[in-house]
Formats: sequence, structure tokens, C-alpha cells
Amino acid sequence: MNTFGNIFRLTSFGESHGKAIGGVIDGFPAGISIDLDFVQQELARRRPGQSAITTARKEADAVEFLSGIYEGVSTGCPIGFVIWNTNQHSNDYDNMKDVFRPSHADYTYTQKYGIRDHRGGGRSSARETISRVVGGALAKLALRQLGIRITAFTSQVGPYKLDKDYTAYDLSRIEENPVRCPDPEMARQMSDYILKIKGEGDTIGGVISCVVQGCPVGLGEPAFGKLHAALGNAMLSINAVKGFEYGQGFNNMEMKGSEQNDVFFNDHGHIGFRTNRSGGIQGGISNGQDIYFRVAFKPVATLLTEQPTVDIHGNETMLKARGRHDPCVLPRAVPIVEAMTAMTLLDYYLLDKTTHL
Amino acid sequence: MNTFGNIFRLTSFGESHGKAIGGVIDGFPAGISIDLDFVQQELARRRPGQSAITTARKEADAVEFLSGIYEGVSTGCPIGFVIWNTNQHSNDYDNMKDVFRPSHADYTYTQKYGIRDHRGGGRSSARETISRVVGGALAKLALRQLGIRITAFTSQVGPYKLDKDYTAYDLSRIEENPVRCPDPEMARQMSDYILKIKGEGDTIGGVISCVVQGCPVGLGEPAFGKLHAALGNAMLSINAVKGFEYGQGFNNMEMKGSEQNDVFFNDHGHIGFRTNRSGGIQGGISNGQDIYFRVAFKPVATLLTEQPTVDIHGNETMLKARGRHDPCVLPRAVPIVEAMTAMTLLDYYLLDKTTHL
Amino acid sequence: MNTFGNIFRLTSFGESHGKAIGGVIDGFPAGISIDLDFVQQELARRRPGQSAITTARKEADAVEFLSGIYEGVSTGCPIGFVIWNTNQHSNDYDNMKDVFRPSHADYTYTQKYGIRDHRGGGRSSARETISRVVGGALAKLALRQLGIRITAFTSQVGPYKLDKDYTAYDLSRIEENPVRCPDPEMARQMSDYILKIKGEGDTIGGVISCVVQGCPVGLGEPAFGKLHAALGNAMLSINAVKGFEYGQGFNNMEMKGSEQNDVFFNDHGHIGFRTNRSGGIQGGISNGQDIYFRVAFKPVATLLTEQPTVDIHGNETMLKARGRHDPCVLPRAVPIVEAMTAMTLLDYYLLDKTTHL
Amino acid sequence: MNTFGNIFRLTSFGESHGKAIGGVIDGFPAGISIDLDFVQQELARRRPGQSAITTARKEADAVEFLSGIYEGVSTGCPIGFVIWNTNQHSNDYDNMKDVFRPSHADYTYTQKYGIRDHRGGGRSSARETISRVVGGALAKLALRQLGIRITAFTSQVGPYKLDKDYTAYDLSRIEENPVRCPDPEMARQMSDYILKIKGEGDTIGGVISCVVQGCPVGLGEPAFGKLHAALGNAMLSINAVKGFEYGQGFNNMEMKGSEQNDVFFNDHGHIGFRTNRSGGIQGGISNGQDIYFRVAFKPVATLLTEQPTVDIHGNETMLKARGRHDPCVLPRAVPIVEAMTAMTLLDYYLLDKTTHL
Repeated sequence: MNTFGNIFRLTSFGESHGKAIGGVIDGFPAGISIDLDFVQQELARRRPGQSAITTARKEADAVEFLSGIYEGVSTGCPIGFVIWNTNQHSNDYDNMKDVFRPSHADYTYTQKYGIRDHRGGGRSSARETISRVVGGALAKLALRQLGIRITAFTSQVGPYKLDKDYTAYDLSRIEENPVRCPDPEMARQMSDYILKIKGEGDTIGGVISCVVQGCPVGLGEPAFGKLHAALGNAMLSINAVKGFEYGQGFNNMEMKGSEQNDVFFNDHGHIGFRTNRSGGIQGGISNGQDIYFRVAFKPVATLLTEQPTVDIHGNETMLKARGRHDPCVLPRAVPIVEAMTAMTLLDYYLLDKTTHL
Repeated sequence: MNTFGNIFRLTSFGESHGKAIGGVIDGFPAGISIDLDFVQQELARRRPGQSAITTARKEADAVEFLSGIYEGVSTGCPIGFVIWNTNQHSNDYDNMKDVFRPSHADYTYTQKYGIRDHRGGGRSSARETISRVVGGALAKLALRQLGIRITAFTSQVGPYKLDKDYTAYDLSRIEENPVRCPDPEMARQMSDYILKIKGEGDTIGGVISCVVQGCPVGLGEPAFGKLHAALGNAMLSINAVKGFEYGQGFNNMEMKGSEQNDVFFNDHGHIGFRTNRSGGIQGGISNGQDIYFRVAFKPVATLLTEQPTVDIHGNETMLKARGRHDPCVLPRAVPIVEAMTAMTLLDYYLLDKTTHL
Repeated sequence: MNTFGNIFRLTSFGESHGKAIGGVIDGFPAGISIDLDFVQQELARRRPGQSAITTARKEADAVEFLSGIYEGVSTGCPIGFVIWNTNQHSNDYDNMKDVFRPSHADYTYTQKYGIRDHRGGGRSSARETISRVVGGALAKLALRQLGIRITAFTSQVGPYKLDKDYTAYDLSRIEENPVRCPDPEMARQMSDYILKIKGEGDTIGGVISCVVQGCPVGLGEPAFGKLHAALGNAMLSINAVKGFEYGQGFNNMEMKGSEQNDVFFNDHGHIGFRTNRSGGIQGGISNGQDIYFRVAFKPVATLLTEQPTVDIHGNETMLKARGRHDPCVLPRAVPIVEAMTAMTLLDYYLLDKTTHL
Repeated sequence: MNTFGNIFRLTSFGESHGKAIGGVIDGFPAGISIDLDFVQQELARRRPGQSAITTARKEADAVEFLSGIYEGVSTGCPIGFVIWNTNQHSNDYDNMKDVFRPSHADYTYTQKYGIRDHRGGGRSSARETISRVVGGALAKLALRQLGIRITAFTSQVGPYKLDKDYTAYDLSRIEENPVRCPDPEMARQMSDYILKIKGEGDTIGGVISCVVQGCPVGLGEPAFGKLHAALGNAMLSINAVKGFEYGQGFNNMEMKGSEQNDVFFNDHGHIGFRTNRSGGIQGGISNGQDIYFRVAFKPVATLLTEQPTVDIHGNETMLKARGRHDPCVLPRAVPIVEAMTAMTLLDYYLLDKTTHL
């Protein structure tokens, strides 16, 4: 289950402190120019150590493509790639070899597999998402040719949240601040709050919102292949994600059908929608309007303060993480949300091509 | 994309007003006694016309098994089944043949396929979920042997919501009222509210909660096969669902990592958890605690009041549904949520068997 | 594993003496006119009782479509269908309930599943191939629009075999004789031989050849999706098939590379091939030439003479089949070979559409 | 379609003259000791330059594992690996950049993808099979614990063929000669013949036979998952393979059902088979007897003599391969046949575990 997608498929491998992280991208369309700088730039957005509010770990995260690209263009053959692990401090994890970190995957992996690479979280580390960002960057290059644009941003950190709809913000300003929030003032407050939490050795969660613009009508398959179900599955596969909602989601439950329906009208000869409460997807299929959704992240489980726990024998003990960790993953998770969205949309775009002979 | 699951797989077919709804269940374990009464009973929980707060349509929804069961026991061969459509009033839909109902799948299906069976919503009708309830009923029969119990209930209808954790309610009382809410007083208020909305020709949404008890440790696959991602995908594939969250979900964002982590302790020689904020899944794998999650449903899009819309040529017109429709789908969606949960868990139980030689 | 295909997918169900045989066709392109007479005609070619050299069983084998077709045209939604079992003589199998028929699936099914429907061979009966013929008929209707034609024929029965290449025969004459052999004189000899074998209560095998004309260049996926591997897999999934070869196959091993290579030349401005020893597929991808392959069938295992065997307890006993059985399956297997070929080609045609954006 | 398998899955990548060949093995059971020497030894059996009858190319083909193995034991997480391309003479292929080699994949790849890496055959090169040998070696390590042994050998080269059943030979002697034929005298004749063909700048094909011993009863899924269909698909995915047959295959067509059936008897209290003409598989499921099958290989298409051909513009030209090529692939293909067999059997073993709860 380390493969994502139907036609466009990313198979990822690698542990946090193993030799390398990497993957194989299969089903990528032939003839797409691969802008390597763009791919590396996307990785830089995910990389640790990019600002004061993220972990101080320094990881180059340089991707090395091994196949499937010839003279700068995709050949339709599988694209293998690796990112070498070069700055691992495995000793930071010596005290966790036989101890279960609370709310991590340590206990469940041990129970399921009977063996685990404990160093840096092993396979369950968020370092695995590097492969997703590579896959997503390639997908974005293809989607760009179709005019599909994906923009994610931090909309909530702890109690600090944007209180307006995404249309009220200038989404082009997201990369101007380290929190990746389109409201500069809110970004500042979130940033201050993250630094305060960091000072306490604690962590905090939040919400990332994502908007897809320029998506054509028709992406999505009925029944078990609904586009929003695929997006939800993609988001929930990201570490620390606890919830997904699109359109109205869990909110505005007091609104009735008559208030929520998106009414059609004749828009200068074309069929138009008066509103977009559906979130751009109806009956599981994109309707040509903006797709938007929200993703809930829990606080990072790794704390720099002491927590009670047990070891593999059940003995109670205290645990305090060593090393360099994020007080809040959201700023670095923004490109991951975009990457998973891009891969999902490209996959469904290719699937939709098979609807007719 | 009309197939659900990896090892246990349900392939469903059928339109609302076609000849029949049905499906094929493949990968069902051999040797399970099939209690046909139980299956039919599950269908009765989903059936329209079961109470004053649901649609008045009368559908027998009697399942006919065609294969895969021999002398009352599953043979390991595919289980084909049909449910005949017997009480269709296709004329109720004559006025919708060329008109797009707002917030329905009419527009997107027409755009994607170039052709659609408009009668009763065709393939996009929630009548398709009958096949899921059949699949879910069989899955429940298998899970029962493993001691896994699944209970869903209505936790919110419009502004009326349960304000306590599921552990505060007696889940055995859910079937005592037509709303399927474990709090009898709240159930009465919800029921009154639904009748009021019905009287207005309007509709209302809400939230269904679901609890899984007795789930063994180890179900779930890392990376792209996380158990909660599979559950989220399953829930989001149900008609009208707009959101999924498990454990803390979108709530309690002000809680820090130190407040959210589920701390281990030595529970009389066994490893215990002090809390269950993770919702029974850690690192994508079940940890043996209760799994719980919430599913958001939007109000039904079909209204018995007039709405402005357009026809397939873009001409503006008014539309008012005829016939018999639900003012609130939640009571009838409770068994569907349980069915999708059951199929997901059985699938992942079987997958987990391949972890070791 | 009762699903065949990647994009175009047939999921089949049903036992020989259960209520019905049937299936679901998913991923069939929208907008294809469904000629029901053609489908039924294909079933008639497979049906028992069509001539003196096949079994005398009378089965109507009338297909009933349940969904996915609206006003005679495919909608892109799953096509469910059933064929009712109406003329089963289950009592003919009473003596086989606890006895293993030699070279049948009785022993292996019992060992694997611990339970089996013994009547008429249950799931392992060739009656299951009815669903394949339905799927193949629909695939043929789609392929017809692309100019792809598929023709299978009996090329060997026991020691009687065609000794020339398929290009030496008039393939339009295949349906003129009950053996489905394009050489009328050889057909007569084969027919006489089958009747002789039948008179002995014995059975005989042979070879079916298949030719695909009009296949476009580019179908097939490299590595594990080679077109001939997909065809081989499809053929080997048919009951009683023991071998598959395409192009030169197992023959002419004394021919060297310099003698086998298909040399290119300039054919009036287009690239032409001097020969077609490759069988129309190179590197796993169709090259635009005729695709041809051969399929080996063993003799039917069911004999009308006594054979020694054992029962489920290991006790030795004698067994003699009752009822109506084929002395040679090849004539009736010709449409099955065509059906599997058609489904494979349509699937790969749709897959190939995803090669480019 | 660069992924092989259902539960055990190998995804391969890489071109002959790209940076590296490699893959990801997913679904490998946890807790298996990985004998790296054994893996490398299997690669040595496939490696070019191992004897006078194979190509003189020197390739180290050293595998580097990147993940999924911790302290020498499989963790159940995906196993990523690479084999660096170090001795490529890409200039040998300069004359083929715009020329289509006869009976190679050059023409079909160019037509399908519009772009191809021509160097060394690119993705369609048999160098891709390195990844399969790695996957197969790991699968063998798992199967060894189950007592399943796989042995392939060269049974025919051009006109030279073994005339007896595999049981007549000592299969332990296969690795004693470079042809990998169990009959030393025949091996010598085959070897002499290959050298003669090599001297002519020509190539020759043949047949590889394979035997599986110790396979438990019950592997294989009915209908579209028959064990022999999976094996056939696996074999036909190997470069240059033109045919597959198991048990009696295409031979002995004059034998009747009464002569081919494998009769049961009471073998000292257990159910025994008098013969094994079925080839160890009945109804698509292994029956506990030896599985045996044969695989036809065509002569290598690359010749060291001049051949007429065309360039991409259709201009006629002459082509003569430069560099180092195999006159006969069979000796080096023996470990590839074993590898594909091992991966198929492990996959089906794991699938069979899901037959019961």
C-alpha cells in the first residue's frame, strides 16, 4: 500500500534514517518538459530549517532522477528517483529504541510488524512526504499545461484562524511569510504564537485550506471514485491529518437545502452558478467551479518536554525527545497538501480520458 | 470505479429507476454462515418509508442472492445479488429530463458522459447504497466472529447536536427512535425539527458519528493505506457527505501536543492508554482502542419548493420536485455508514493477514 | 480475482447450477449503441446443443441487462447483467457430491475453500464463460467503431490440424461448419473424428487460432503490461487451456535471428514490414500488423466411461459421468477466445489513451 | 504497468543506459532474514560476461538496498533498491538513434510515446530484468521457509532439445555448465552450437523449462486468477518470450481424455495421483504435485551482421549492431524465469492467506 493513484501512480519507499527516501512515478504522460529547478523549489518549500518557526534540521533534500526523463522530457517510462539521507542524527533516537513515544506509530508498528526501524520514526516519519512532493511537482508541471492551478495555505494555527472565505484573500501573497498564510497580519500572529509554543517545548495544530482553479468539468468517477473521496483519501494519508471537509463541510449545519443549493442561471449564454457552496464538485464530479477544501492537522506528537510512557516490556518510564523538531507542521505541510492534490487531479484527468472511445 | 476494496471487494451496479440494483462481492472469506434475515434487517434500516420523518416511498428492497452461498455458507466464490426496482414512479421525473436540478449530479453527469438516465437520479441516486448495505451486512457477519462491533448514530441534525462524547450515551438505545440518536430527549427534538423542515418543503443536514469496538491492533497499512484514510474515503463515497474527521478532528485546535497526546501506562501488566484522543488509530494503524469518527452530511438537494434553474440548453426555468423525498437523510444513512465501515474493516483485516508469511 | 481488466473491467459471478450466472461490466465507454441481437448471437455461438458434435444440453442462455444502458446506448455507468440457469439437471451430479472427478477442480477447491458447490462443477464450470462472452460482445461493439476485427477458429482437433498459415484460408467461412474451421474438408474430418470420440465416451483436445486485424499501432504497455502477456493471461484464464503462443511461438526453433527478424522497408512512402513473424506485437506493443496467436486446449476431463478415483475420505471408487457433456470443447470455445481477445484489446486501447495528456 | 503482483508487488524502473536500474518491492512479509550474498549470487547468474557463450559486456550489477531492511531483516516496509549503470557504451548506439532495429521495440515505442531513449534499447532493454532478479531473490528467501523450491533449465537451443521428461534428469547439475542444461552431453552440444551461431554474427532461440517442487495445495484463484494464467503472464512479460505452456501444453494432442486424466488413488491413507499430466495445477489451483511449464524464447533480434531497415523518416538503410551482444539469451534467462516464478508464487501464497478469516 505504498502506491498512490490509478493511472498516475507514485510508489514511495524509504525510512527517515535509512540510506535514502525515493520512489517511482509510473503512468506519467510522455512528452512533458521536466523543469528540474521547479521540482527542487517545491522541495525547498517542504524542507526543514527554512525559517525560525520550523525545525532547525538542515537537510539538502536534493532529488536525483534515475530514469524516465530523456533530454529533459518525460518518456512515458517510469521515473525513478532518490533523495539521499545525509544529515541524520540517529543517536538522537537511541533513548527511543525500546520506548513507545505517545501518539506516534511506535506501538502500532511494533505490534503489526514485530520489528521496526525506530530511528527518526523510520517509515512512519513525515520525511516520507518528500517523495510526494517530487510526485506532486511533476504532476503540477503536467497540470500547468491544462491551466489547472493549486494553492494551499495555512488558515488556522491553534486558536488563530482566518475568518473569511478564501476569495477574500490575495492568494499570491502566501509565500511572502513563513507561515504561508495569505493575511500578513494573521501570519504575524500565528508566527508569534508558534514561537511561544516552541519556547514551551510544546506543539500546536491547525488547518490548511486548499483551492483548485481552472479545473475542467468532468473529473471524478461516480460511486467509489468520487473526486472529493479521492482528495479526502489523499489528504488523510498525510501524517498528522485528522480531518477533511470540502464545500460547506461540517459548518453551517443550520443552513437548509434551500439555502445551500447552488442555483444555475443563464450567464450570457452559458450555464452559470450563482454560488459555489458545493465546493466545485457535484455528484463526485468536478463542475468547473473552484474546488476548495480544508484539512485538519493535530499538534506534532514529539515534545521537547518530559512525558510519561512505557517501554516495549510495559515498564513505565519518562521520555523527552532530543534533537530538532517542528513546533507546528503546517507551514511545511502546505506544499504536501498541494502535491497530493496535484497527483490526484492528474490521475483523475487521465482516468477521465477513458470515458469515451 | 464502481468497485470498493482491495481483498474484500464490492462491485455495484444499477440506476434508481432501471430494472435492478445489485452487485458482486468478491474476496469474501469461505465458510461464513450467511444469516439472510440479518441482511434483510439491515436493508430495512435503510429502507424508505420506515417512519414519519423519512420519505413515504414504499420499496420492498428484498435482496436475492444468486451465487457464492451454498447451503447457507459462503463458498469463497463471488456473491452476486440483485434488488429489483419495483415501485418506481418514473413519471415523477418527466419534468427533469432536460432540466438540471441544483446541487445534484445532473449537470456534471451530462457534461462528463454526454448521456444520462435522468429518472430518479439514475446512477447518482442514493438508491445505489442498497448494494453497500448488502455488502456491509455480509462484512458484519464476518467481523462478528472476530468480536468487532460497529455502531453509528445521528449526533447532529441542523442546529441540534449531542454535546457529549460517545462514551456518555447508551449506544444500545439507538434503534429505539426513528432518528437513530442515543439520547431520547435529543432524538425527540431532532425529530420535531425534521417534521417542521419537511412541512416547509425544505431539507436539513447533520452529522453521523460512528464507533468501532473490539478492533484488534494492527489493521491499517502505512503511507497510502492508512486505516483512517480508507475510512475517510469510504465515508466520502456516500452521497451527500461533505466531511470526515476522526479522533480530535477539526476540534479543540487550542489544545497543544502535551494536552492531546495519549499517554501510555502499565495497566496491570499490559500496556494501557490513559486517553483515546487519537481515535483508536496511530500512524494509520489501529491500536486496539475504540475507533471513532464523524461524518458530515449536507441537506438533501431535492426540494419540494420551487427553485430557479436552467435546462440543458441554458434556458432559465423554475423547478419543483414531485414525488416522495427525504427531508433529512441522516436516519437512513446510519446503516450506510456502518456498512461502509464494516467493509473497510474486513478488507483491512484480510490485508493484515498478509503481513507475515 | 473474479475481475478481468484494468480500465474496462468484467467482474463475473455464478455457479453452473446456482440461480444465475452474470456479471458487471465497468469502465465501458459512454455513447456506444448496444446491439442486443448481436450479443445474443454471440451467446448462441457458445451455447450447448447447437450441433451434433456438442453437448445435447439445452440452455437458452438469454442475457438480461439490468443497468448501464439507457435507450439503447451505454451511459458509462456499470452494466449489470444476469443469465438465469433454467435447465439444470443437478441430480446428474448426485454421485459426485463426495467424489473427486479426475483432472477437475473438485479436489483443489475442496482443499482450498473447505466447501464447494459440486453441482455441475459449481464455480469452476465452463458455464462461467457465458459472462465473458457477454463482456466480449460489448467490447466487440466498441472495437468495431475503431475498425478492429477479431476472428478465431479451430486449427487442430486431436491429430487433425491445418498445416498452413492463417493467410492461406478464407476466414469468412468459419461459421459455415460446426467445428468452426476455415478449411471445409478439414472441418469434415475433424467433425467425423469428434463423433467417433464421442461414440467411445471419450474426449479430445486441440488448438484454437486467433487473428486480430485492423489493430492500431501503440496498444500495449512495456515491462509487465505487454500486450501479448495480457492476451496470454486472458487465454490461460479460459477453462481447459494449457498453452499460449504468438508469432513464431514454440515453432521453428531452428530459425536464426537473421531468418526471424521482420525487416522494414519503404512502402510507397510509409514504413512497411517485409514479414510478420513477430505476430503483430514488438516490445509488447502492437505494431499495426495482424496480431495472431494460438491457444492449446486439453481434452475435457469429464468422461462417459468409468474411471477409478477416490472420495473425500480417500476411499477408492469408480466414477462415470451422467448427463450431457462435450466430447470436444473447441467449437464452442472459439467465441470465448474471441471474447477474451476483444476485452483485452478494448482495455488496452483505453489504457493507451492515457499515454499523453 | 511497471508493477507486478497483487500483494507482493515489484515496481521497476530504469533504462539500459540511464543512471540506474532499480525498483521498489512492496508487500514483502516482515521478519524475513535477507541474505545479501544470495541476492548478489542470483544477479551473477543473470550477469553478462559470465562465460564464452554470453555477451562479453562487463557489468558489476551490484544491488544497493535503500530501505525496508533493518539489521538484516525485512520490516514489512517497501524495499527500495538500485543497481547503477556503470559500464555503458552509449556510443555503440549512435548509429541507431534515428534507425529502427528490426524486430525490436524501437518502432513501436516511437509510435506510442513520440519520444524514446534509444541508447542500449532504453526501457525495452533486457537490462530491466535485473530488477526482477532482485525481486525474485527476495521471494525465494521467503519461499524457502515454506519449503518451495524453483528450478529452471535450458531444455532446447535451436534444434538441440532434451527428449525426456524433467524427472529423468538430475536438476542439481544445472549450474555445472554455462548453458544451464541438466544433461551434460546435451549442454556441450548446445554450447558448441551457440558458439557457431556467434561466429556467424547470428542468434538463436530455444526453450526454458521450469519445475516447482514443494508447492502446497491451494495456491491460485479461480476465474481470472488461475495460477497458471499468472505464471503465463509472468513469463510472457520477459523479453523475447513467445510462448508458455504447462502440463501437456501444445503436445500430445492425439491423447484422449481417458489417457490424459490424472487418476486418484489411496496412497497409504492419503489421496494420491497416479500421474501428473495436469502439471500440478487443476482448476487454476495448485494440487500439491510438482508444477512444471515451458517457455519459448525467440532468437535475439540484435545481429552483428548487416540488416536492411529504415530510419524514422522512412528512408531505407543498412544496420549492423556494434558492441557486445548475446548470441543466445537462454543461459542468462534461466534465473529470470525462476525469479518471475518465485514472485508469482509468493504473491499467490499471500493471497491464499485471505481465503479464510
